[in-house]
Amino acid sequence: MDLFRAYVIADALAILRDHVRLETPAERVGLREAFQRTLAEDVFAPEDVPAFDRATMDGYAVRAQDTFGASEGLPAYLDVAGEVLMGQAPRGRLEAGQAFRIATGGMLPQGADAVVMVEYTEELDERTIGVVRPVAPGENIIRRGDDLASGTLLLPRGHRLRSQDVGLLAAAGVNTVLTRRPPRVGIITTGDEVVPVDRTPGPGQVRDVNSYTLSGQVREYGGEPVMYGIIGDDFETLAAVVRRALDETEAVLISGGSSVGRRDVTAAVVASLGSPGVLFHGLAVRPGKPTIGAVIGHKLVLGLPGHPVSAMVVFSLLGRPLLDPGFRRFPVRARITRALSSPAGKEDWVRVRLDWGEGGELIADPIAGKSGLIATMVRADGLARIPLESRGVAAGDEVEVIPF
Amino acid sequence: MDLFRAYVIADALAILRDHVRLETPAERVGLREAFQRTLAEDVFAPEDVPAFDRATMDGYAVRAQDTFGASEGLPAYLDVAGEVLMGQAPRGRLEAGQAFRIATGGMLPQGADAVVMVEYTEELDERTIGVVRPVAPGENIIRRGDDLASGTLLLPRGHRLRSQDVGLLAAAGVNTVLTRRPPRVGIITTGDEVVPVDRTPGPGQVRDVNSYTLSGQVREYGGEPVMYGIIGDDFETLAAVVRRALDETEAVLISGGSSVGRRDVTAAVVASLGSPGVLFHGLAVRPGKPTIGAVIGHKLVLGLPGHPVSAMVVFSLLGRPLLDPGFRRFPVRARITRALSSPAGKEDWVRVRLDWGEGGELIADPIAGKSGLIATMVRADGLARIPLESRGVAAGDEVEVIPF
Repeated sequence: MDLFRAYVIADALAILRDHVRLETPAERVGLREAFQRTLAEDVFAPEDVPAFDRATMDGYAVRAQDTFGASEGLPAYLDVAGEVLMGQAPRGRLEAGQAFRIATGGMLPQGADAVVMVEYTEELDERTIGVVRPVAPGENIIRRGDDLASGTLLLPRGHRLRSQDVGLLAAAGVNTVLTRRPPRVGIITTGDEVVPVDRTPGPGQVRDVNSYTLSGQVREYGGEPVMYGIIGDDFETLAAVVRRALDETEAVLISGGSSVGRRDVTAAVVASLGSPGVLFHGLAVRPGKPTIGAVIGHKLVLGLPGHPVSAMVVFSLLGRPLLDPGFRRFPVRARITRALSSPAGKEDWVRVRLDWGEGGELIADPIAGKSGLIATMVRADGLARIPLESRGVAAGDEVEVIPF
Repeated sequence: MDLFRAYVIADALAILRDHVRLETPAERVGLREAFQRTLAEDVFAPEDVPAFDRATMDGYAVRAQDTFGASEGLPAYLDVAGEVLMGQAPRGRLEAGQAFRIATGGMLPQGADAVVMVEYTEELDERTIGVVRPVAPGENIIRRGDDLASGTLLLPRGHRLRSQDVGLLAAAGVNTVLTRRPPRVGIITTGDEVVPVDRTPGPGQVRDVNSYTLSGQVREYGGEPVMYGIIGDDFETLAAVVRRALDETEAVLISGGSSVGRRDVTAAVVASLGSPGVLFHGLAVRPGKPTIGAVIGHKLVLGLPGHPVSAMVVFSLLGRPLLDPGFRRFPVRARITRALSSPAGKEDWVRVRLDWGEGGELIADPIAGKSGLIATMVRADGLARIPLESRGVAAGDEVEVIPF
């Protein structure tokens, strides 16, 4: 840990990525349960798809050479010798000078190597068509194995399955896949002054907001939240709970008050648990300065700020890519409506509301309000980043916004 | 239905929005189950938050006027008459010339109207501090009800609860909320040639991919998929299944082959079921041309193309905003790597892979491959739109991409 370095989010993430491996047991599941799970194996195509050459247009299966030179003025005349019915193999083989009626998806008869679109034919009688435009071999057909050749890598180990990925596995005839159980994430709220939501806070007390916001985030990022309740500011008690959470889960979030004393207890507890231990203590990030990043074994331990907004922002920026390593963030660009100053040496993540301007361009309106107030996150659509070296932005400047 | 108009996605959405109301029964649920559900009621703050004036900094609670004129050279000397303990009400009232030690979040004692940060004080002895900088009334404190005043609208009916929304309700002391059950979406695959995933397709047959991709999308968009299996190309059978699905769900997706005959069966079935019935049949959209949009009562019926890619693209563009009306799409801008031509009179949605260019800008690489192939969706990160009136884009042009 380099105490003199100002860590921004990208640094913190790189440090944690070097040590964190959220390994969960592998389970073989059916395709219907596989959605949004992570693959624990490389998956290869077990067979060719399609398993036969097929038409990609409605029309006539032909030998391409029989259509060479065909034109409106001089059509190529072909015998309609058969029809390919959907879901059935063609009857017989296509010979020179013949055509088979075929619909999109139909299996190409032996002897055919192209499909003439119905638009480029004229029906002369029941048994004869005129082709008014030539086709090349392979035109309007898809060959056996063109979609997926047997043995092709379909999806790599570690990939989190989206709708289209499950669709690909279905198309390939893969019925079950080895997946990882979603990572369990322990959530611990600390603070003598924190009370459960169903209790009316007495003087100096606040309700436990973080366990709700963080468990929602964990679910959104593909994990399974495990609640460890509200723990007072006591080293032994907190250490015992964190130890239990580390036994039972793959990652532990400890959100605590922002006072110096509180942070020291959390840091001391984390430092006492094992190696590599605390990797950074404090970030050059606003909000999120008092964040503690640690790894015990390969398990992630994040000491998050007590303020709900700060905890949400830091967990979104650090936790999401760690829980879901394949997740890719694509910021949108928007014009900011007001000037914002930012101290040099701080990376600012400003809550903004996104809207469409009169010219159809995106505009980002910074949310006013005290930083600890969760209502500011409710009004926001995303976070605009003001980099470490920047002193701020002027009204009308373009900023990059990460939508929630 | 205006048969002469070329409907693009925005038109189709506007037409459907006029008629669709996915009303599901309301259920009162606890806050832990409320995540990602839609509110069936306006929710108001039941009490002031905070319920008392509190410190937002570590330091000393004071009467601001006692610090006026204070400076490094001429500190204001105050008696430390007490300490506010976290989670407890202050003991006694603060009198003129006094200060109480207080930590962030602590309850302000009666008589105090500001907090001096500890950095701007010097401890002279156990009972006396010097304040070296004045504070204004209200400085470093938050007043009762400043976060949420009792009676404020917290979240409106129809809002889908994100992590921060649940956090806001927790902060306000709202324990249960009236939410709508997620909309059920019936999924019907049609086609004599379609076989279940666990069967090896015979000649001319294909596996049922759409029921997997569409059910994943339904879950992602906040609905609950209900599977109705694979139905052959027969009017009576299909009509019976669609009628049952309309009884049991709030929306029905019928994906079918792209051949003209198949579409006619689906359209005829949908037209036979009730009013307002079929609202459009065919879109000026690629992929997605053979889409049927219909509403029966207030329930949505979409006839989707049989090709898995087309079905996914159309359902993503039309189904998502209908299932999740508060969902807001923010396209990213990226430079396209290759020229693409687009027939005028077609709105094209091109699958692209997004990556970072050398200058740190986003680049969009169109995915090559036959359009029906689901593997192209697997390689893609989003859809770039080429508008109706455009003839295409040149390499290096900026395009708008909707990430998946």
